[in-house]
Amino acid sequence: MVNEHLASRLIQWRRDFHKYPETGFFEMRTASIVAATLDKLGFALQLGKDVMNKNYCMGRPSEEHLAEHVKWAKANGANLDYLPFFEEGYTGIVATWETGRKGPTIAFRFDMDALAIYESEEEKHVPNKEGFRSTVPNRMHACGHDAHTAIGLGLATMIATNHKNLNGKIKLIFQPAEEGVRGAKSMVKANVVEDVDYFIASHIGTGVPQGHFVASNNGFLATSKLDITFRGRASHAGAKPEEGRNALLAAATATMNMYAISRHSSGITRVNVGEMHAGSGRNIIPDFALLKVETRGESSEINDFVKEQVEAIVEGAAKMYQNEYEIKLVGEAISCKGSTDLAKILYHCAERHPSIENSILESNDPAGSEDATYFMEAVQQKGGQATYCIIGTDLAAGHHNEKFDINEQSLLPAVEIFYDLILRIN
Amino acid sequence: MVNEHLASRLIQWRRDFHKYPETGFFEMRTASIVAATLDKLGFALQLGKDVMNKNYCMGRPSEEHLAEHVKWAKANGANLDYLPFFEEGYTGIVATWETGRKGPTIAFRFDMDALAIYESEEEKHVPNKEGFRSTVPNRMHACGHDAHTAIGLGLATMIATNHKNLNGKIKLIFQPAEEGVRGAKSMVKANVVEDVDYFIASHIGTGVPQGHFVASNNGFLATSKLDITFRGRASHAGAKPEEGRNALLAAATATMNMYAISRHSSGITRVNVGEMHAGSGRNIIPDFALLKVETRGESSEINDFVKEQVEAIVEGAAKMYQNEYEIKLVGEAISCKGSTDLAKILYHCAERHPSIENSILESNDPAGSEDATYFMEAVQQKGGQATYCIIGTDLAAGHHNEKFDINEQSLLPAVEIFYDLILRIN
Amino acid sequence: MVNEHLASRLIQWRRDFHKYPETGFFEMRTASIVAATLDKLGFALQLGKDVMNKNYCMGRPSEEHLAEHVKWAKANGANLDYLPFFEEGYTGIVATWETGRKGPTIAFRFDMDALAIYESEEEKHVPNKEGFRSTVPNRMHACGHDAHTAIGLGLATMIATNHKNLNGKIKLIFQPAEEGVRGAKSMVKANVVEDVDYFIASHIGTGVPQGHFVASNNGFLATSKLDITFRGRASHAGAKPEEGRNALLAAATATMNMYAISRHSSGITRVNVGEMHAGSGRNIIPDFALLKVETRGESSEINDFVKEQVEAIVEGAAKMYQNEYEIKLVGEAISCKGSTDLAKILYHCAERHPSIENSILESNDPAGSEDATYFMEAVQQKGGQATYCIIGTDLAAGHHNEKFDINEQSLLPAVEIFYDLILRIN
Amino acid sequence: MVNEHLASRLIQWRRDFHKYPETGFFEMRTASIVAATLDKLGFALQLGKDVMNKNYCMGRPSEEHLAEHVKWAKANGANLDYLPFFEEGYTGIVATWETGRKGPTIAFRFDMDALAIYESEEEKHVPNKEGFRSTVPNRMHACGHDAHTAIGLGLATMIATNHKNLNGKIKLIFQPAEEGVRGAKSMVKANVVEDVDYFIASHIGTGVPQGHFVASNNGFLATSKLDITFRGRASHAGAKPEEGRNALLAAATATMNMYAISRHSSGITRVNVGEMHAGSGRNIIPDFALLKVETRGESSEINDFVKEQVEAIVEGAAKMYQNEYEIKLVGEAISCKGSTDLAKILYHCAERHPSIENSILESNDPAGSEDATYFMEAVQQKGGQATYCIIGTDLAAGHHNEKFDINEQSLLPAVEIFYDLILRIN
Repeated sequence: MVNEHLASRLIQWRRDFHKYPETGFFEMRTASIVAATLDKLGFALQLGKDVMNKNYCMGRPSEEHLAEHVKWAKANGANLDYLPFFEEGYTGIVATWETGRKGPTIAFRFDMDALAIYESEEEKHVPNKEGFRSTVPNRMHACGHDAHTAIGLGLATMIATNHKNLNGKIKLIFQPAEEGVRGAKSMVKANVVEDVDYFIASHIGTGVPQGHFVASNNGFLATSKLDITFRGRASHAGAKPEEGRNALLAAATATMNMYAISRHSSGITRVNVGEMHAGSGRNIIPDFALLKVETRGESSEINDFVKEQVEAIVEGAAKMYQNEYEIKLVGEAISCKGSTDLAKILYHCAERHPSIENSILESNDPAGSEDATYFMEAVQQKGGQATYCIIGTDLAAGHHNEKFDINEQSLLPAVEIFYDLILRIN
Repeated sequence: MVNEHLASRLIQWRRDFHKYPETGFFEMRTASIVAATLDKLGFALQLGKDVMNKNYCMGRPSEEHLAEHVKWAKANGANLDYLPFFEEGYTGIVATWETGRKGPTIAFRFDMDALAIYESEEEKHVPNKEGFRSTVPNRMHACGHDAHTAIGLGLATMIATNHKNLNGKIKLIFQPAEEGVRGAKSMVKANVVEDVDYFIASHIGTGVPQGHFVASNNGFLATSKLDITFRGRASHAGAKPEEGRNALLAAATATMNMYAISRHSSGITRVNVGEMHAGSGRNIIPDFALLKVETRGESSEINDFVKEQVEAIVEGAAKMYQNEYEIKLVGEAISCKGSTDLAKILYHCAERHPSIENSILESNDPAGSEDATYFMEAVQQKGGQATYCIIGTDLAAGHHNEKFDINEQSLLPAVEIFYDLILRIN
Repeated sequence: MVNEHLASRLIQWRRDFHKYPETGFFEMRTASIVAATLDKLGFALQLGKDVMNKNYCMGRPSEEHLAEHVKWAKANGANLDYLPFFEEGYTGIVATWETGRKGPTIAFRFDMDALAIYESEEEKHVPNKEGFRSTVPNRMHACGHDAHTAIGLGLATMIATNHKNLNGKIKLIFQPAEEGVRGAKSMVKANVVEDVDYFIASHIGTGVPQGHFVASNNGFLATSKLDITFRGRASHAGAKPEEGRNALLAAATATMNMYAISRHSSGITRVNVGEMHAGSGRNIIPDFALLKVETRGESSEINDFVKEQVEAIVEGAAKMYQNEYEIKLVGEAISCKGSTDLAKILYHCAERHPSIENSILESNDPAGSEDATYFMEAVQQKGGQATYCIIGTDLAAGHHNEKFDINEQSLLPAVEIFYDLILRIN
Repeated sequence: MVNEHLASRLIQWRRDFHKYPETGFFEMRTASIVAATLDKLGFALQLGKDVMNKNYCMGRPSEEHLAEHVKWAKANGANLDYLPFFEEGYTGIVATWETGRKGPTIAFRFDMDALAIYESEEEKHVPNKEGFRSTVPNRMHACGHDAHTAIGLGLATMIATNHKNLNGKIKLIFQPAEEGVRGAKSMVKANVVEDVDYFIASHIGTGVPQGHFVASNNGFLATSKLDITFRGRASHAGAKPEEGRNALLAAATATMNMYAISRHSSGITRVNVGEMHAGSGRNIIPDFALLKVETRGESSEINDFVKEQVEAIVEGAAKMYQNEYEIKLVGEAISCKGSTDLAKILYHCAERHPSIENSILESNDPAGSEDATYFMEAVQQKGGQATYCIIGTDLAAGHHNEKFDINEQSLLPAVEIFYDLILRIN
């Protein structure tokens, strides 16, 4: 049977991507292989800058790092025909199947990027045991986007194989840089979902167990990602401390006070100073500090409240230590709510799939953030429907953990449920 | 012998003042008794507003508190003839002895104020045992100004008794509100030392042992006393925390950062947030905070550096929490250096006094602050000489401690040394 | 008609209580009048320590303050027959009407305490204009408990007047010290609701407009009220700063870090440092600091999480500055959920009252905290039903604001709805 | 004349070292050239581990970095005969000239290490203009140790040339890793100054102008260099913040409180958190933080006071956030006072040198720290004499600044004064 073969193909893809993880905007090898595969299946492709608006890419890497990565991709199995389209770090793909028959336009979003995590070398860690552990130090698919990309290719395969049964138009969107919520907005601003009637984003895991499926996950928080820099004045800490303007102290006091931002009576807030790097020598009054900060809110309004407090705090801290400062927005996502009608159809598709023992219509638990919400908002604003679903799976460890791993048995059901959804909407 | 009688008179005075302590600008009972005594001895008196420039009194009490204290003074033995001169809280006295003979003008400064300390009730605490413990809760002569005032009256007695041996003019200055360095500047600005050729300020104790005498103590730090208030916005901490503007947090972060003000390569600095009072209820976002702050510096320049940092920090903290703020200067003293020639004469007077086993010309150890430095600077700027001397004594406990007590045997020698100094300068 | 007369009686009561506000455990005048009134109406009374378990009173005032207040109460219209029952500061009352007929036991809780707020002197502030402004400086009924007490007496009046129509038993509980969530637990632990089948607590205002009524308000947060003290060592800030152990700095850093306690993914949290009082003099290293803190959580578990973090932070801050510390629990409340069946009956009573234009079954908005939740939990644990309802009213300013005032037209409807509820449950 | 040739040789050496800067314990190229030169001049050499006690080397680099640097040294002109002695990172040299004649043992200390600073690329920066700017990114002789090493070789040359005029024994000590005060102690503990009667350490610049010379500089502060790490627990900052244990917050609050360590009445203190590196991703609760800290004190006792406070603060901060922590001592120096007799001789040598217009016996201004103080203490403890002198020079910019440069005209006078000193002591 076709799908038995597809099941093993899904695992192959997922393991290949797992072995060669690429972080946001660096997904050159991944995208080149995805593009070549989709091309072969017969999809019409739009690539790189054609599907990404440069003005809305946030937190892009330096030219130098991109150039280095091109070399790595070449040396590590990138498809050389397609690599050139992605070498500047615009690694998005939109693959369209035009049935030629009347019908709706349905789009699926899959994200492709990995994380800056050093994958576990523990023996019993499955990717290690089975030989597909990350080959790149400090890079790891620890969130499951390798699985997402594989599911996307699996769905593409089913569409191409069964295209005669389908109507309307199907778009598969492979998005870069979901981590840091940096990539989606640029694809929305390149109008890739302008014509979309139904939009489905998905994630594997997130605490939903194997055999469970959530048709509409609405707990995403609006978020802003900020790089905050303080610049003071260096001075010898022993001989002339009073001539310094201490950027590390400005950053430390800003940090303390950011965490003190008021909780909000209208909903959930979060603030995190994920990284601080400051100073250039033990005996020098630090003249530089970088904070990597994120704010979140249950609604975009609440997130804005937190962000505004961050801004006041940073300004105040700079004032205290006579520092210059800069607040740079390097990622942003909004909150969003799935369309109930589409969610219900998806819920039923999952419900009747033999592997799903518990199909759930809606979940509102607070979760992380997702920039797929930009796609959802754009589709909904034009009168279309959108949902964000969760494919349950057994996790070896939590997302972003060095021992993260999924149960690969959840890949094929995801593909089949999505294919079923296309049929039902058609 | 006269001085035996004087010795016991000194102890009487000191114990009376000790029993009825009055804090800065409230020295109404004390001043009324001092004035009456000096009047009786034959000194010419200038009182209250005649010797204090209202524009330079810092940190004055409220009219309400002053009015209350008048009642207390009346009920507790104030001299009713002189009390009226001091009822508005201008409690300074200048007593002049004009010999009519040619000669220099010599001035001595004695301070009269007590502290807001609850005196020890321990049995073995001498003032308790001997029945002259403070009668006022939370008021105590814990710095020795009761002794200073007594020494001033003792010196006055010797001058009056022996006036035929003296030349020139002698001025005895009884200053209010030395604690908090609030009173001296207003007397200087009322020109009370304009005509002074030699100026001597003194302190008992300060770590100098019984039988020792320091002719010139130069370790006083320049200082500023600041009352800093933050005003934010209250809100219910459970229901609407985000509507508050937290003044307590502004004050706490200002405090943390004030202590982080850089040490200075040119000399000693100090900063202290001695008190914080903030908020009006456990479940209310605090809308008010008061900080009682002092800065110090080895020189006035260094103190200014610290003060400017405090100002930047307060502005920054207010910014962070969208608070209003106010910084009020409620006390200030400069640094100063004694005149060597005058110090040498005083050194010799002490050296030949039978009770002094160790006369020291000069000490430069950092100490607290003193607003007698304003008198010193004024006298020196006009070409006069000034010094600040220390009369050693055994202390039962450190200054400002609830068990502070002096050895009363050090009172008479101080009077005799000062009298000897007058003779020598004459 | 009776109820017209009752309407004006309600206003009289409320204004009288408003004019003589008493804070928690000091409600001696109030309780004496309430008891006398209930007695006259024919209720059986249990008073003071008979309805309050001493071991569970939190944050009680000092004997000295209580004794002073007895004098005040005598001088300000307390009922002298009943005052003696309350003079030790156990000011709770349970008034029971036993119909002698079979039927359920229904209890209503009314709280009586005022706040430490200085009531507005603005001319247009109604209590000022109408002559019932607080006669006590810094004391004010700014939360509406004056109205609650009046409603309780109004309901008592209707019960007494119409007792022949009633069955079962009705208990009116007048609780002290709801502010600071200090009083309820002691009444629960004195078993006053042991026999209760239906329990109704209520509050006026809280943002619900005039003419609206919420039958079941479930947004109360679990909370702990903590008095935290740090004790360090004093030292002269200029002369010997290194000998101090700074309690104010310990408290300030504890404060900063308490606000940094992590948000919780399972629900709402709050932390507030409502007051700080530290230090005893500008030039002294502070040896003492008091923080008035409260934590809250959407569930008791979440509140415990926050409280445990507070404890670790306080311990760490004391460590930093070699301070001693104490954490004293002075108030506590749990979260609770109203019983749906009882809420539905109450909802219908409100719905059919002519003055209510909008009766709402349930509200889950996060609000402050309430120790009525202890009564609710106790009743529900025994199989009874409980609800917490909100009587809408126009507010002149928010709760705990110096210009707080209610619309007195909301008093009679509240009484009538509660009476109707008794009839319906009967 | 010989010394004209030596003047240009000094400049050559200094520029060569400037062009190939090596940081502490990496001075392999430098040491290999120094050793080869001294060998050729006829000195007896002790090298590497023979003059460094491994147990007292602080803050040593990793084996990996050392191995890498060996390659660099080979490729950049190291003397291949001597390089092997230094490849493990023990880069000290003691060169002895034994005259064979009776007389004292005189030792000079020269330090060789550079800093991690990116040298200015400005055109007018002399090393750039003259072609001897650092060839290594982020490495620079910005403190003048290139000049010190050149002076050492110059002095060696004069000794070798004129050895017939000399008596006793002369030891030239070339020390690694003075920056971070890491290298001296290990040489002292290898007993290299055990036999020394007179010890002279020196520094160029430090604010002393060209043509000035300070024979005894005593302002060095005792210091401790600490690497402090906090280890907490990572967690997703959006989804499960409460499961994290925030190491960055622990480090930030430790930082704030370290700066709040009390000033000390006995003398100067310093504390600096020169670097913070914390966290591993914006959306992860940081589980790691590193602080690079230094404390200083006017005496070793005062420095110990500050260090103990740091320890208490770090422990408290770890407690607050349930972190593990480690405090690692990576450098240490004591305070010291020069021997007056030796200083006087040196003062006269400088005074009579034609280039010196202002010879100063003693300076006590607070400066940075120096581990030459360990040599000084060791020599003085055995009854020898020691001094630390300053060779004035024009500076293009302050020490540790990217535009730092010296006036090379100060090199030859330094050599000649030192040679003169040998003659005088002889």
